[in-house]
Amino acid sequence: MTHILHNDEGMWLPDQLPVARFKERCGFEPTSEWYEHIQKASVRMNNGGSASFVSPNGLIITNHHVAESVLDDLTTKKKDYIRDGFYAKRLEDEIPAKQLEVNVLWEIEDVTDRVQRAIAYCKGSAQSSKERKAEISRIEKESFGATGLRSDVVTLYRGGAYYLYRYKKYTDVRLVFAPEKAIASFGGDTDNYEFPRFCLDVAFLRVYENGQPLKTEHFFLWSDVNSRDNDLLFVAGHPGTTDRLSTLARLRYLRDFGLPYQLNLLRRREVSLQQFSGRSEDNERKALHALHGVQNIRKRFLGQLGALQNPEFIFQKKYQEDELRIRVSKDPNLAECRDAWEMIEGVERRVREIRDRFNLLEGGIGFMTKFFGIARIIVRLAEEDLKLNEERLPEFNDSSRDSLLHSLFSSAPIHKDLEQYQLADSLAYFMETLGTDDELVKKILGSKSPGMLSYELISATKLDSVDERKRLVGGGKAAIEHSQDPFIKLALLIDKESRDIRKIFEAEIEEVRERAYAKIAKAMFVLYGNDVYPDATFTLRITFGRVSGYVDEGVKISYSTDIDDIFRHAEKHNSKEPWSLPERWLKAKKRLALNKYRSNISNFNFITTHDTHGGNSGSPVFDSRLRFRGILFDGNIHANATTFMYVDDVARAVSVHAAGISTALKTVYGAKRLVDELEGKAA
Amino acid sequence: MTHILHNDEGMWLPDQLPVARFKERCGFEPTSEWYEHIQKASVRMNNGGSASFVSPNGLIITNHHVAESVLDDLTTKKKDYIRDGFYAKRLEDEIPAKQLEVNVLWEIEDVTDRVQRAIAYCKGSAQSSKERKAEISRIEKESFGATGLRSDVVTLYRGGAYYLYRYKKYTDVRLVFAPEKAIASFGGDTDNYEFPRFCLDVAFLRVYENGQPLKTEHFFLWSDVNSRDNDLLFVAGHPGTTDRLSTLARLRYLRDFGLPYQLNLLRRREVSLQQFSGRSEDNERKALHALHGVQNIRKRFLGQLGALQNPEFIFQKKYQEDELRIRVSKDPNLAECRDAWEMIEGVERRVREIRDRFNLLEGGIGFMTKFFGIARIIVRLAEEDLKLNEERLPEFNDSSRDSLLHSLFSSAPIHKDLEQYQLADSLAYFMETLGTDDELVKKILGSKSPGMLSYELISATKLDSVDERKRLVGGGKAAIEHSQDPFIKLALLIDKESRDIRKIFEAEIEEVRERAYAKIAKAMFVLYGNDVYPDATFTLRITFGRVSGYVDEGVKISYSTDIDDIFRHAEKHNSKEPWSLPERWLKAKKRLALNKYRSNISNFNFITTHDTHGGNSGSPVFDSRLRFRGILFDGNIHANATTFMYVDDVARAVSVHAAGISTALKTVYGAKRLVDELEGKAA
Repeated sequence: MTHILHNDEGMWLPDQLPVARFKERCGFEPTSEWYEHIQKASVRMNNGGSASFVSPNGLIITNHHVAESVLDDLTTKKKDYIRDGFYAKRLEDEIPAKQLEVNVLWEIEDVTDRVQRAIAYCKGSAQSSKERKAEISRIEKESFGATGLRSDVVTLYRGGAYYLYRYKKYTDVRLVFAPEKAIASFGGDTDNYEFPRFCLDVAFLRVYENGQPLKTEHFFLWSDVNSRDNDLLFVAGHPGTTDRLSTLARLRYLRDFGLPYQLNLLRRREVSLQQFSGRSEDNERKALHALHGVQNIRKRFLGQLGALQNPEFIFQKKYQEDELRIRVSKDPNLAECRDAWEMIEGVERRVREIRDRFNLLEGGIGFMTKFFGIARIIVRLAEEDLKLNEERLPEFNDSSRDSLLHSLFSSAPIHKDLEQYQLADSLAYFMETLGTDDELVKKILGSKSPGMLSYELISATKLDSVDERKRLVGGGKAAIEHSQDPFIKLALLIDKESRDIRKIFEAEIEEVRERAYAKIAKAMFVLYGNDVYPDATFTLRITFGRVSGYVDEGVKISYSTDIDDIFRHAEKHNSKEPWSLPERWLKAKKRLALNKYRSNISNFNFITTHDTHGGNSGSPVFDSRLRFRGILFDGNIHANATTFMYVDDVARAVSVHAAGISTALKTVYGAKRLVDELEGKAA
Repeated sequence: MTHILHNDEGMWLPDQLPVARFKERCGFEPTSEWYEHIQKASVRMNNGGSASFVSPNGLIITNHHVAESVLDDLTTKKKDYIRDGFYAKRLEDEIPAKQLEVNVLWEIEDVTDRVQRAIAYCKGSAQSSKERKAEISRIEKESFGATGLRSDVVTLYRGGAYYLYRYKKYTDVRLVFAPEKAIASFGGDTDNYEFPRFCLDVAFLRVYENGQPLKTEHFFLWSDVNSRDNDLLFVAGHPGTTDRLSTLARLRYLRDFGLPYQLNLLRRREVSLQQFSGRSEDNERKALHALHGVQNIRKRFLGQLGALQNPEFIFQKKYQEDELRIRVSKDPNLAECRDAWEMIEGVERRVREIRDRFNLLEGGIGFMTKFFGIARIIVRLAEEDLKLNEERLPEFNDSSRDSLLHSLFSSAPIHKDLEQYQLADSLAYFMETLGTDDELVKKILGSKSPGMLSYELISATKLDSVDERKRLVGGGKAAIEHSQDPFIKLALLIDKESRDIRKIFEAEIEEVRERAYAKIAKAMFVLYGNDVYPDATFTLRITFGRVSGYVDEGVKISYSTDIDDIFRHAEKHNSKEPWSLPERWLKAKKRLALNKYRSNISNFNFITTHDTHGGNSGSPVFDSRLRFRGILFDGNIHANATTFMYVDDVARAVSVHAAGISTALKTVYGAKRLVDELEGKAA
C-alpha cells in the first residue's frame, strides 16, 4: 500500500522502471538495449529460483540450494553429489539434469483489456472465474501457436493487470560444477538468514540446444574485483510471492491463521523428516534435500510472522490503508473502488472455512507422496484431454503440456521408504483434520490405520516406473479405469470432491480477490501515478540498491566477509557440523590465508539493500556496466519482514561475491576450464 | 474396560494383588512381609520417576534420565555432569542435589466413604467440587498432624475410590554415580522406544537423614546373574497416567483433538529448542535436558495416537464398552450408573471449548518460563495463606507446603537466554491462540511484539535470586503489591482470570468426570468382582511378568542384548552421534569383549512382558526372592498402545540388566566402592 517509495524500494517490471526515480538514485538513464540485455541474460529455474548466463556458451550460474534438487536426483548410494560436489573437467563430462526446465523471458505483452473484456458481462464470480480462465487459455494457446514460445499470462497487482509472458524454454540442462554442501550452506539451518555469512552457495549448469551448448549473445561479463561500501548495484531475478498490496484484513488473516497454520505443518514435517533421517546415513542422504527445504521455509515464515506480530508494523500498514481509503471515499471517480476492502475481508473469512479441505484434497497435503502427485496428473490428463483447450484446468492446456510431460516422465529416483514415511504422517494428518467420522476419511482409510495404509499403497504401486506412467498416459481413460495401481485408484476416488472444492476456491476466493484488488490497483494508479510496482509473482524484476552494512541491536555489521574469515568462523564452533569444512578447504587454508598479506583478499559474502524476496535466490548482482559482481542467495532475518513492507534500516539481501567465487574455483577446486570460460579465455 | 484379564495384565495396588490369579501365574502365595518389603524398598522420585533402595545405607538406583534433572542443575560451563558423568570415590565426595524430593510409601488408608459422604448432599458440581477438595484437605492435614508423614489423598478408578497415601519424605539426596549421557541414552532419540537396545540408563543417589546416610532394612539385594527366557520377575514402581478405564468418548477426544493438539505443541517446542541449541555448544548444553524430555514425550504421544488411529483397536474398545453398558442397562441395581457414558461425552465436548484458555493461563503454556512459575507460586502463596487450610488451592495446603517451598527456594540455575527464547515463542503462541483482538492479549502485550516483551521481562526480573524469592514470600501480600518485578506483575495481572478458568475446569470437567467414573467403577466392581485394577496415578504398583522376546513384522527379537553388542551397534552407525561411545568405553572394549570367550558375558538390556507405563522409569525389576535383577527404563514402541489396553504380543518393557550394570561399574568405571556396597562387602 506504500505510495511513497522508500529509498531503493521496488521490484520493477523489466520495461517499467520509474524513470525519474531511477535517474535520481542511479545517476544514469538506462537504454532499451540495457534492459534487453538484462532480460535475456536472466534465467528462471522452473524448480523455484533464478540464474543468469555468464558465458556466450550457455553457462549459467545459480545457487547450490537452487541446483540441489538436480544433485539430489543424481545422487545414489554410491555417489553423493550433494555431500561431495562435482566438477566436469571436460565438456563431455557434464551430466544431464534429470528433471529441470529453465526459461528465458523473451517478450511481454499487456493483455489486461482483453481479459477484462472477456468477463465484462459475467454474472457472478463462478461464471467470471470460468470465463477469465478460458480467455487466458485462449491467449496462451494463440501465442504459443504463433511464436512457439512458452506463453504464460500472469496476474499482476493481484488482479490490476494481466501480462502475457513469452519464454524460450530449455530442458537439456547439464551439471558443470557444484561445491560440497558443507561449504555451500556452511553454518546450516543455524546460520541461515544471518549475517556475517560464509557460504559458497553457487552451482554452474550449462544450457544445451540440439545437443550443443547454447550460443547466446546475452550474458553477464564476469568481474572479480571486490566491492566497496555504498557501491551501486543491480539485481535481476524472479522474486516469489510478496504481500505488499495486501490489505490489512489479509495481513490479519496471515498473522492469526495463515502463518500459524503453515508453521504447524512445517514443524510437523521437519520433526518427521528428522526422525526418518536419524535412523541411518542412507536415510539422512535421502531426506536431506526435503529437510533443508522445510527448515528454510519454516525460518522464513517465522520471520514473517514475527513482523506481523509487531503491533508497530500493523499500525503503519493501517495508517497507509486508512489514508488510501479516505482518498478513495472522497473521489467520485473511484466510487466503484470503495467496496474493495470489505470484499477482501469477506474472502479471508471464507478462506478459513474451506482452507482445510482445499489444502488436504486439492493441495494434496493429505497424501504427501510423489506417487500421488504423479497419479493425479495421469488421471486428470485423461479427463482433461477430452475437453476443449480453454475449458481445461490451466495446467493441462496446450501451452503447458510439454512442461507437464517433461516433469511427469522424469527419471529422477523416488525413495519408497521415505515416501512411505511421509505418506503415513500425512494420512494421519488427513484423519486428524477432517475427523474420523468424515465420510471421505472412512472411504479412504477403511479399517486401516494411516501407517498400515501407507505401507500397502507404497508397496503395491508401480508408478516408480517411467514406462508404466507412459503406458497409462498413452492408454487414456480406458487404461486408467482398468488400472489396479493403488495411487491411480486413490486419485480417481477423490477427484470429484477435489475438483469441487477447487471450483469453490477459484470462484469464491481467487476470483473475488482479483476483482477487489483490481479496484485497489485502479485507485492507486489514479491517485499515486506510475510509481506503483506489482507484488512479486515469480516473474522477472529489476531492482537497484547499494552495498551497505547496518547496525543490529547496537552491533555494527560490516557489508562483507572475506574468504579466509571462514576458518575463524569454523573454529568458533569447534568445527562441528554444520561448521565442519570439507577436506579440500582445509587443505587450501594456507593458500587462501596467504592472500591476506597481499591486501587483495577476496570478498566472500556481502550484503546490499536490494528489494528482493524468496525466488530471487540465484539472481545475478551486477553493476551499471552489466558486469557480474555476485550472486544473491539469501536475505538476513530482518528481510523476512519485506514480504509485507520494504525497509532498509536492517533488512539486507545476502550474496556470494564474484571475487570469492573466482578465488574458490582457482585455489580450492583447481577448476581451470570453468575459470577460463568465465574470464573469456576459452570457448 | 477390560474385564477379562490378559495374561500378566494389571498394575496392582501393593496390598491388593489378585490372589488366585497371582498364585496361578506366579506359583506361590505372597506374604504380608513380602509386600511390605517391596513397598518400603521402593522409592518415588518427585521429579517423575521411580527408584529403589539397593543397600542398607540409603543407596538408591534410578535411571540416568530420571536423575538427569539433578545433573542438569549441577552442570555449569566448567563442569558438565550430563556429558561427562560423575563418580564419588569417597562418601564425602557425594554431591547434594539442588532440588529433589523422594518419597517412600509407608501406609495406605481407604478414605472413599469419608470423601463420598462429604459431597452426598451437595447441589451442583461447583459445590461438590469445592466440598470434595475441602474434605480431602482436611483428611490430609489431620493425617499429617497425627503422623508427621507426607499425606496425599489419591483418586483411584478415576473417581471410584479415594485412598490416603502416607509417605516418608527425604530432601537430602546426593549424587553417587552417573555415567556419561552418551552411554546412558545410547542411540538417542532414534533408538528410544526401540529394541534391541544398549543403554546404561542408570544413576545412583544416596538418601541422607540428619546429615548421615539413611539406614534402612528394606532394600533389594543385588544379584548379577544373567536371565533366561521366560524367567518370572516383578516390577514395583509408579506408572504415570493411563487411560484404560476411559470411555470411548474420551478415547475419541484424545484421538481427534487431545493428542494432535499436544503433539503440535511438542513439535513446536522441539523445533524451537533445536534452534536455540544450534547456535553454540553452550546453548546445546543448556537446552539438552529440556529437548530430551520433549522428544521423549513426542515419541510416546505419537505412539499413543498411532494406536488410537488403528480402527481395529477402537473396535475392540467399543466391543468391551458396549458389553458393559448392556449389562448395566439390564441390571436394576445399577440404574444410577446408566448415564455415566453420556456424562463423559458431555465433559469431553466441554473440554474442547475451554481447553485453550485453561492451558494458556492456568497451565501456563502461554508463559513458558521458570520465572513465571516462580512468580505465580509467590503471588498465590500470599493469597492462599490468608485462607483456612481446606479452602486453599490444594497445592498450597499445609501438608504440601514443605515440598512447595523446597522446590521454590531451590538454587538450581536458570539460564536467562534459554528462558527468553522459550518465553518469546510461548507468548507468540498465546497471541496466536487467543487472537490479537483478545482483551487479555492486548493487556499483556500492549504495543510490543512477543519477542520484545520477552526480552524486557527476562532482562528486568530479579527472581533468579533465591534471596529475592525468600524476601517476597516473607513479605506477604504487601511485598508482592509493591514489587516491581515484571513476572510478579504478570502473575498478578492474570491471576483472577486464571483462577476463574480453573474453577470452571474443576467443576465442569474434573468433578463431573469423577462422578461419572465412580458410577462406572461401581458397575465394574459389581459385575466383574475384584479383578479390576485402577488406572495408573503415579502411585506404587506391583506387576508380574516374564522375560520374553517377540516377533515384529516377521523379525524375531531376542529377549536380551549382551554388553559387548554395543560396539557392533556403534559400528553399524559409523560411531556418529548419538552412537558415539564415550572414551572410557572405547578403552574398555577389549576387556568387555574378552568375556565373550568365558561364556559368561553379561546381559546388558532385556525385555519383559510387565504391565508398566511412563513413571515406571527407574523401577526395580526383581525376582520372587526379592533380589534386584534389573532396572526398567523404557517400553518398546508398541508399549505406547498399553496406555489404553494391555497387550503382550509385541509390547515390552525394556530394562538394564543388573549383570550389565555390575560389569560396567567394574570394568569400565572401576567403581570399587560402589560395587562393594552393592555386593554387601562394605558399609
